[in-house]
Amino acid sequence: MSFVITIGRQYGSGGRFIAQKLAEKLGVNFYDNDLLTKVAEETGMSKAVLDNYDEKRDGFFSGVVPSSFGTDMSLGQKVFLAQFETIRHLAERESCIIVGRCADYVLREFPNVVNVFITAPLEKRIERAEKYYGLDPKKSRDIILKMDKKRANYYNFYSDKKWDRADSYNLTIDSSVGIDEACEIIRAYAAKKLKIEL
Amino acid sequence: MSFVITIGRQYGSGGRFIAQKLAEKLGVNFYDNDLLTKVAEETGMSKAVLDNYDEKRDGFFSGVVPSSFGTDMSLGQKVFLAQFETIRHLAERESCIIVGRCADYVLREFPNVVNVFITAPLEKRIERAEKYYGLDPKKSRDIILKMDKKRANYYNFYSDKKWDRADSYNLTIDSSVGIDEACEIIRAYAAKKLKIEL
Repeated sequence: MSFVITIGRQYGSGGRFIAQKLAEKLGVNFYDNDLLTKVAEETGMSKAVLDNYDEKRDGFFSGVVPSSFGTDMSLGQKVFLAQFETIRHLAERESCIIVGRCADYVLREFPNVVNVFITAPLEKRIERAEKYYGLDPKKSRDIILKMDKKRANYYNFYSDKKWDRADSYNLTIDSSVGIDEACEIIRAYAAKKLKIEL
Repeated sequence: MSFVITIGRQYGSGGRFIAQKLAEKLGVNFYDNDLLTKVAEETGMSKAVLDNYDEKRDGFFSGVVPSSFGTDMSLGQKVFLAQFETIRHLAERESCIIVGRCADYVLREFPNVVNVFITAPLEKRIERAEKYYGLDPKKSRDIILKMDKKRANYYNFYSDKKWDRADSYNLTIDSSVGIDEACEIIRAYAAKKLKIEL
């Protein structure tokens, strides 16, 4: 039986790293920005354009999502829909872990999907972002809050749920418990939820 | 080492039941409405009055919480402060599980506290509330949403966090994984977070 674990994350919470480690432990693929490479392969869209619109809303979105790739769509919309299709193709084809990109919403009708969100106290996220992403300590707090806002905007716009709400997910974890520990808790929850050995 | 696990919950999510089962498994006391019996014992306030203000905001609250039990406080305020004191006394005295009542906020400076929130999809909560609390199927949905709103109002007013946000807690769980399964995940997380055997 194939399954998908989607992992949303506050900026600097270590969510991406947790997803990557979990994928290694479970022996499945992990898609983050790599998803855009897949999208580029499937659609012929340029990776640079895809990167530019990744998890961002563009400014001229009309609010209506047409079901086909018409020319009346903004580039941001096209990127969203291309990702949407690629996420669905992946879920039909293989067990995997997908980070961000509204994958939980895109796969809402799929069976065997577990939706996880990673949080951490702001001070821990600041510490982590300065250490691992090299953020300037004078600006790190502002950058983190801005990145969260961007992700929330994208998620709240394209999905019918709220990015920061507990009930948008099956499981949310404060990663200050530890990276390996968080992986273990997700593994345990997913196994129980999917009723399989993991 | 003593510890406290606080458990907030959406109405009908089974959070109270999970807390009770977990307390049995861990061999510690569990406080829900019983907390009010403790408050009555400690303060001499009437249990009926305490029940009336339990997890509710009264309408005439000035917005200033004085540090002593002055006569200028509304009854709702007095009940909140009496609960606050009782929760602190409990946490100083014993390991326990406390359901709702802003215990996570009250104990924010205490070491060895793990804050959990239980969610479930609305349709599961409706099913549960009709089955176990005997709610009228015509009204169950409205009652559930109203109870959630009441709890959120109380929490958002007395704490500096938001009741429904993932990052207000260390762990949030969709209980549709199963009651025993949710207990097991909380136990596993708490053991890792507190660095003890549980």
